[in-house]
Amino acid sequence: MRLADCRLAIIGLGLMGGSLAAGLAGRCRWIVGADRDPGAVELALARGWIQSGFTDPAAALRDCDLAVLALPVRAILALLGRLGSDLPLPPRLLDLGSTKSEVLAAMAALPAGVAAVGGHPLCGRETSGLAAADAGLFHGCRFAVIPVPACDPEAVALVEELVMELGAQPLRVGARRHDRLTALTSHTPYLLAVALAIRARRLEKAGEPIAEAAASGFHSAVRLAGSEPTMMLDILLTNRANVLRELEEVQSELAALSHLLARGEEAELGERLRAGREARGQWAASQELPGS
Amino acid sequence: MRLADCRLAIIGLGLMGGSLAAGLAGRCRWIVGADRDPGAVELALARGWIQSGFTDPAAALRDCDLAVLALPVRAILALLGRLGSDLPLPPRLLDLGSTKSEVLAAMAALPAGVAAVGGHPLCGRETSGLAAADAGLFHGCRFAVIPVPACDPEAVALVEELVMELGAQPLRVGARRHDRLTALTSHTPYLLAVALAIRARRLEKAGEPIAEAAASGFHSAVRLAGSEPTMMLDILLTNRANVLRELEEVQSELAALSHLLARGEEAELGERLRAGREARGQWAASQELPGS
Repeated sequence: MRLADCRLAIIGLGLMGGSLAAGLAGRCRWIVGADRDPGAVELALARGWIQSGFTDPAAALRDCDLAVLALPVRAILALLGRLGSDLPLPPRLLDLGSTKSEVLAAMAALPAGVAAVGGHPLCGRETSGLAAADAGLFHGCRFAVIPVPACDPEAVALVEELVMELGAQPLRVGARRHDRLTALTSHTPYLLAVALAIRARRLEKAGEPIAEAAASGFHSAVRLAGSEPTMMLDILLTNRANVLRELEEVQSELAALSHLLARGEEAELGERLRAGREARGQWAASQELPGS
Repeated sequence: MRLADCRLAIIGLGLMGGSLAAGLAGRCRWIVGADRDPGAVELALARGWIQSGFTDPAAALRDCDLAVLALPVRAILALLGRLGSDLPLPPRLLDLGSTKSEVLAAMAALPAGVAAVGGHPLCGRETSGLAAADAGLFHGCRFAVIPVPACDPEAVALVEELVMELGAQPLRVGARRHDRLTALTSHTPYLLAVALAIRARRLEKAGEPIAEAAASGFHSAVRLAGSEPTMMLDILLTNRANVLRELEEVQSELAALSHLLARGEEAELGERLRAGREARGQWAASQELPGS
């Protein structure tokens, strides 16, 4: 099946689901959307991103060719548990959850007859909700594609077509490696930003003019703290062991830096600062490469 | 004295000194620059940012009305120690060092006959060197202005005119408060970024595809690790007590988040994530205000 012939159901019309609908509008046979918020359904209809919309996921899942679950991870897990019992089982399924191990395990346990693929667009924004949705959100970003074992290759090909239609680049990676990687590249940096924001807020309440002293470096450093808390709570709780390990590793590196500074061990401290700069320079350069 | 009548000497033609020269070109009687790197002097001359240039600071300091020290903090401290002995004492002095307590103490100990003002443009970039200099670097940012006690008000007025000519906004703040604030808004975030970069680099060397998994949030989080290590080493060592204290506060907040996650204390963890988001939202909004 090609995307152009596909009846697409998008469950969840937030930033991710809304941007997906916007990016695929006119490129599928039709798109139906569902969100528990009637306002989001109305807005997506008004913008022409979906042809029909419901607050009940069952109505959207009926007669679709491919269902996309664009919900926080634990809402995805809850919905997967209902497919084939009180919710219609779609023939093909893609989720956009930010952690993948638990989702892939739940997908593998689905009734026969559904080809399920885990997905994750690596393009976080610190905004949320349908109002922030944007057809270009996925453009130029990588998109993890993780089929269940023995998944129908035709469903995987359809998902990869969808990913490329959005201007993203499919990244084949295992669920465990995905979660290990994002614990360090996304979830731990989020907690660093939250810790910094909480401390700064405490000083601000004590009368220090944080906003006046904050330059662009501070705004970069706290940026991830703007992520949606419900989504992040799901992410942290479904990737707990990896996040706790990476947090410990980063804390231990911080303790080493702190120790070197306290003792004035300039040569060794300088070496670590240079190592950090060199690594960051490489990633910044790789970010500029086409397609990355 | 007005800026238009001023013979300006800029000691240090890196990112800050070069951007200052570029931003003030044609707005002073003349600008002379000095840098120990002859290539930087030549480039600044070729771009028309300075009218004459030297590798010896003594030649630039002779006959100027206002000298601007645009060097790493400890190089500023070393140069201040030579003024009036083996270097000519300018009548007015401004420095651009990133920490202020030690600089202001050294300024207060200068021989009589110099009106000294500490300065710090709050507009860090993670680039360095004259090649990255930009006349618009200071535009829209705050610029800490910290005169020595009993400083000639006419010199302070000249510095504030210079700051506003660059499109920046003078921020009157004490040296101790400045250093306390920037320890949290800049120096501690820098160390968080370095620790994260070092950990990520270690995983990358072990074969993990960090660059492929890194989305924009990771790039924001490690951005400050790109700061120039010599400059940062000076900053950390001249603001050591404040940085160690703020680092400890942030680490203790991280430990609390880690503990809540390990125990699955969802309500309390969620509350902190929401507090972090709320604080970040306020700063992001204040960043959009005119002049901030």
